[in-house]
Amino acid sequence: MASSENNSPDPKKPPVLTGSGSDHPRGSRFRQRLHEIIFEADDFAGALFDVLLLVAIVASIVVVCLDTVPNVGRTADPKVDGPYHGLLSVLSWGFTIFFTLEYLLRMYCVRRPLKYAFSFWGIIDLMSFLPDYLLGFGGIFTRGSFTVIRSLRLLRVFRIFKLGWFQHEAEELGDAVWRSRAKITVFITVVLILVTVAGTLMYEIETWQAADTSQFESIPDGIYWAIVTMTTVGYGDIVPTSAPGKILSAILILIGYSLIIVPTGFVSAEILGQKSTTKTSTRSCPSCISEGHDTDAIFCKHCGERME
Amino acid sequence: MASSENNSPDPKKPPVLTGSGSDHPRGSRFRQRLHEIIFEADDFAGALFDVLLLVAIVASIVVVCLDTVPNVGRTADPKVDGPYHGLLSVLSWGFTIFFTLEYLLRMYCVRRPLKYAFSFWGIIDLMSFLPDYLLGFGGIFTRGSFTVIRSLRLLRVFRIFKLGWFQHEAEELGDAVWRSRAKITVFITVVLILVTVAGTLMYEIETWQAADTSQFESIPDGIYWAIVTMTTVGYGDIVPTSAPGKILSAILILIGYSLIIVPTGFVSAEILGQKSTTKTSTRSCPSCISEGHDTDAIFCKHCGERME
Amino acid sequence: MASSENNSPDPKKPPVLTGSGSDHPRGSRFRQRLHEIIFEADDFAGALFDVLLLVAIVASIVVVCLDTVPNVGRTADPKVDGPYHGLLSVLSWGFTIFFTLEYLLRMYCVRRPLKYAFSFWGIIDLMSFLPDYLLGFGGIFTRGSFTVIRSLRLLRVFRIFKLGWFQHEAEELGDAVWRSRAKITVFITVVLILVTVAGTLMYEIETWQAADTSQFESIPDGIYWAIVTMTTVGYGDIVPTSAPGKILSAILILIGYSLIIVPTGFVSAEILGQKSTTKTSTRSCPSCISEGHDTDAIFCKHCGERME
Amino acid sequence: MASSENNSPDPKKPPVLTGSGSDHPRGSRFRQRLHEIIFEADDFAGALFDVLLLVAIVASIVVVCLDTVPNVGRTADPKVDGPYHGLLSVLSWGFTIFFTLEYLLRMYCVRRPLKYAFSFWGIIDLMSFLPDYLLGFGGIFTRGSFTVIRSLRLLRVFRIFKLGWFQHEAEELGDAVWRSRAKITVFITVVLILVTVAGTLMYEIETWQAADTSQFESIPDGIYWAIVTMTTVGYGDIVPTSAPGKILSAILILIGYSLIIVPTGFVSAEILGQKSTTKTSTRSCPSCISEGHDTDAIFCKHCGERME
Repeated sequence: MASSENNSPDPKKPPVLTGSGSDHPRGSRFRQRLHEIIFEADDFAGALFDVLLLVAIVASIVVVCLDTVPNVGRTADPKVDGPYHGLLSVLSWGFTIFFTLEYLLRMYCVRRPLKYAFSFWGIIDLMSFLPDYLLGFGGIFTRGSFTVIRSLRLLRVFRIFKLGWFQHEAEELGDAVWRSRAKITVFITVVLILVTVAGTLMYEIETWQAADTSQFESIPDGIYWAIVTMTTVGYGDIVPTSAPGKILSAILILIGYSLIIVPTGFVSAEILGQKSTTKTSTRSCPSCISEGHDTDAIFCKHCGERME
Repeated sequence: MASSENNSPDPKKPPVLTGSGSDHPRGSRFRQRLHEIIFEADDFAGALFDVLLLVAIVASIVVVCLDTVPNVGRTADPKVDGPYHGLLSVLSWGFTIFFTLEYLLRMYCVRRPLKYAFSFWGIIDLMSFLPDYLLGFGGIFTRGSFTVIRSLRLLRVFRIFKLGWFQHEAEELGDAVWRSRAKITVFITVVLILVTVAGTLMYEIETWQAADTSQFESIPDGIYWAIVTMTTVGYGDIVPTSAPGKILSAILILIGYSLIIVPTGFVSAEILGQKSTTKTSTRSCPSCISEGHDTDAIFCKHCGERME
Repeated sequence: MASSENNSPDPKKPPVLTGSGSDHPRGSRFRQRLHEIIFEADDFAGALFDVLLLVAIVASIVVVCLDTVPNVGRTADPKVDGPYHGLLSVLSWGFTIFFTLEYLLRMYCVRRPLKYAFSFWGIIDLMSFLPDYLLGFGGIFTRGSFTVIRSLRLLRVFRIFKLGWFQHEAEELGDAVWRSRAKITVFITVVLILVTVAGTLMYEIETWQAADTSQFESIPDGIYWAIVTMTTVGYGDIVPTSAPGKILSAILILIGYSLIIVPTGFVSAEILGQKSTTKTSTRSCPSCISEGHDTDAIFCKHCGERME
Repeated sequence: MASSENNSPDPKKPPVLTGSGSDHPRGSRFRQRLHEIIFEADDFAGALFDVLLLVAIVASIVVVCLDTVPNVGRTADPKVDGPYHGLLSVLSWGFTIFFTLEYLLRMYCVRRPLKYAFSFWGIIDLMSFLPDYLLGFGGIFTRGSFTVIRSLRLLRVFRIFKLGWFQHEAEELGDAVWRSRAKITVFITVVLILVTVAGTLMYEIETWQAADTSQFESIPDGIYWAIVTMTTVGYGDIVPTSAPGKILSAILILIGYSLIIVPTGFVSAEILGQKSTTKTSTRSCPSCISEGHDTDAIFCKHCGERME
C-alpha cells in the first residue's frame, strides 16, 4: 500500500530535491508541499487533510444513504421526490465536485500520474466521482448507487494511523489470515459440499413429507437455507416444517456448531506460531548444510561444527 | 478505580490518624468507621453493607422493570395504571430515598466530597436517584426510565470481590482486551466498510430484482441487514427475496463466518503472550552460555555463576 | 463421581473379601458379583449391563417424547388420546418397572444403601421412576413430564468410557472450565449489566419513537431481546421498528460480536497454560527461601546457592 | 485416500514396469498412460483431466439445481414442465453418459477393477450416474434427487492440490479434529442432555403457562427449539410466548454462549500442542547443562559437545 502511493521523487534525499528541480522537471516547491499534504500524514497539514477527507467520505455516504430513506429523500411514489431530496442532491454534487478536485490535485502533484491513475487507490479515487457524472445525464441506477464505491475510500483511514504500531497490527492480522488461507480454503470447500448435500436432501425431504407447507421451492433454496443454518445465522425465513426435516436440520446445526471451532483454532495457532517461531532461523550449517537451527545456536546441532 | 475512592486520610498510617484528629480537622472516629463500612469491604460490616447495597440495586431494577409489564404495573390503556402500580411506586420511592441517604452518607464521610462528587462513581451514584426527583414532578419519561442508570451501579459488584484473585482476573481480562484494541479497531473498521458496501448493493439488487416484494426500504435498512447477517445474529425481519439477493446474502454470510475467527485468535494470542512472555528473558549465562533464564534471575540456574 | 459410587467393601483387597463374609455381614458372593455387574464396567457382563441400561434410558425418553406428538400419543382435543397412546403407556410403565427393579437391585448390593440413596446418582436414579408412580394416581402434570429426569440418567453414559483416556479428557475439559470460572463470572456480569441497560434503553426508545408498531411491551421484554441479540441467537420475534432502535440494535450487535471473543481466548489460554506450565515447580531455595524456580534449576537464580 | 486409489502396479519401480508387461498381464502402455491421466495429477494431461472432471461435476450439480427452480425447470403445476426442462434434461443425460464413460475408463485402466469398484471412491463414482438410469425408467424421486450424490464427487477437488503443502494442511486439520474427538464427544453428549432437559421443560412450561399461544406442540418440538437456540442459530419459527418460557430461554442462551467457547479452546490447544511439542525436547547438554535442544540434535548447539 505505502509503496504504491509513494510517488514522490526519491524520498530518501528530500534536501537535495527541494534545492533543485533539475532531476525531476515537473517538480516544484509548491507541488512537493502539496504532495506531502495529500499523500502523507506525518505533519499537521497532512494529518488535517486526511481527517477532512475522511469526514467528507463519511458525510457523502450518509447523504447517499439518507436520499434512499422514505419520506426523507424519496416517497413511496417513485415519481415524487422526498422533502429533502433537493438539499441532499446539492450536498451530493458538492461532494462529487470536491472529490473531483481532490483527484485532479493528486494527478497534478504525483510524479507519474499514469502510474497513480492505474494503481489500486487511483482507480478507487476515480470511481468515487465518475459514476455521478455518468448518472447525472441519465442511467439505470437513478439514485446514484455507484457512490457506494466511496465507502471503499474509507480504507484510507488506515493511512492516518502511520504511528507504526497500528500499521504493524493490521499487517500482522492480514499475515495470519494469509498464512491460514490453505486451511480456510479446505474448510470452506468442506462446508460448501456439506451445504450442497444437506440443501438437496432437505428440498427432497420437505417436498416429499410436507408437500403443502414446504417452504423449499427449489434446490438452490435448500442450499441457501443450509448456508444460513450451518453458519448459525438462522434467519428463519425458510424453515423445515416436517418432522424428518427438523431432524435433518438439528443434525446439520450440530455439525456446523462442531465445525466452526476448527478454523478458529488454526488462526489462533498461526498467530501464536508467528510470535513463538521467530527464534527459529533459516541458517544453514556451513559443514553439513543441515537446516532448522535456532538463531542463538553457536554450534551445529547435527555435526558439532561452529556455525557463525 | 480503587485509588479514586480511597479518600481516607493517609491510609498508610492508620494508628496515628485514629489517635489524633489534628491533621484532618473534619475527621472523627465515627466518620472514619463509616468510611470503612461504606467504601471498603475488608471486615464484616463493610462486606454486609456492600451485599445489602447490591441487593437494593438489583431489587430496585426489578421494581422498575415490573412497573412496565402489562397487567402488572401498567395496562394497555396508558391512562389506566396496572393493579400493582401503587405498590411498585411506593417501593421505587423507597429505593430512591435509600440511595439518596447512601449518597449523603458518602459525601459526609469522604475527606474531599467534591473530588468524590465529580469522580466516575460519584456521578453514577448521583444519577441513581436524581432523575427520580426530576421525573416525580413531571417529565418526558413518565415511567421513570432514567432509573435504568441504577443498573450501572451494578458495576460496584466487583468491589465485593476484593479477594485478590478475582480482581486480578478482571484486570487481566481488561488488559487483554485493551492490548488487542488496535487489532479490534482494524477489524471493526473492515467489518463496517464491508457492511456499508454489502448493504448498499443489497438495497440496489433487491429494488431492481424484486421491486414488489423487497423488504429493503433504504440503504440504512440494507446496512442494518448486513450487520445483522454478518455477525450471524440473523433476525430474519429483513431478508432478501430475489435470487441474486440470496446469492449475495450467502456470500456475505460465508465472509462473516470466515472473519469472526480472526479477532478470537488475536485475543487468545494476547492472553497467552501475557502469560509466557512476562518472565522468560533472552539472557544467556556468561559462564555456561545456557539460556531460558528468568528476567529476575541473579545467578545462573544451571552453573550458579553470577549473571549481572 | 467414581468414589461416591464405589460402595463395595474395600476394593483394594477383593481376594480376602470374597473368601470370608465375616467382616461385612451383609456381603455374599452373589451380591458381590451383582455389585460388579451393576456398578462397574470392567468385564463383559458389567459393560453389557451398562449398554442395556443406556438403551433403556434413551428408549424411555423417546417413548415419553412420542407420547406428546399430535396424532401419535395425543390429539388436538386434550380429552381424546392419540392412536398410539395405549402402546406408549404400556412401554412407559414397562420402563418405570425396569428402573424400579434396577434401583432395588442397587440398594440390595451396595454395602451402605443409605449412603447410596442420598448420593447424587442415587437421587437421580430414584427420580427416574418415582414421579411415574405419583403421577399414575393423578397429578398436575398429566403427561408425565417428570420422566424427563430420566434424561439426567444419560450422564451415566460417561461410566461406559472408563477406558482411562476418555475419562481423563472429560476431567481436563471440566478443569479448564473450572479454572476459568472467575473470568467467566466477570464476563457474564458485564454481559448482564450491558443487557439490562440496552434492554431498558430499547424499550424507552421504541415506545417513544414507534409507539404503534413497537414490539417491546415491557423492560423485561427489552432485556430478553438484548440477550437474544447480543449472543447472536437473533430469533427475530421481537425486533426494533424505529430508526433509532435499529441503530442501537446495530451497536449492541457489534459490541456482542467483539465481546464473544474474550472468554474464548481465556479458556484457550487456560488449556494451553495447563499443558505448558507443568515445568514451573513450587521449589523453594534452602538458602534465600525465594520461590518460582524451574524444575530443572540446579542453582538458586537469586542467591546462587545449590538447590537440590 | 491416496493409497486406496493407487492401484498402479508397484509405483516405486515405474521404469521396470513400463519396460515389460510380463508381471502385470493386463497392463499396456496405453492403459498405463490412461491410468496416469485419470488417477494422477502430476503432469499437464492429468491435471487437465482433473480440472475438466471438476467442471463437469459442478456443472451437473448446477443443472440438477436449476431443474427444480420454479419457472425454469418446473412450474407450480407438477404436471407441466418448466420452459427450460427439456434443455436441462438433455444436459443432465449428457453428464450422466460422461460420468458413465469415465467410470468405465477407470475400470479399464486400474489393475484390480474389483478393488476399485468396492473402494470408497469407486462406490461414489458409481453412485454418481447409476441412479439416473434407475430413475430414467420411473421411480419415486421424479426429479432425479439421487444426482445429489454427484456433489460427494466434489471431494475429489482435493486431489488437484497435490502440491504438498495443501494436502499437508488438510491432513493437519483432520488430525487436530481427530485428536480432539474424545473432548468433542464429551461436549456433544453434554449438549444433547442439556437440550433434552431444556426442551422438555420448555414444552411443559409453555403448555402450562401459555396454552393458547404455545408454539411447542410436542417434546421433540421443544428439543428442536433447544438445539436451534443453544447453538445460537435462532430461527425464530418456534419461540416462547410466556414470561417463564422467556426466562428459561434466556438462561439456556447464556449457558450455550458460555459452552461454545470450550471446544474451541481445545482444538486450538491441540493444534498448538501439535506444533510446539514435536521438536523441542527436555534434553540437557552433558557438558554445559544448557537446555532447549531439539529432539534431533546430535551436538550441543551452545558448546558443540556430542549429546548422545
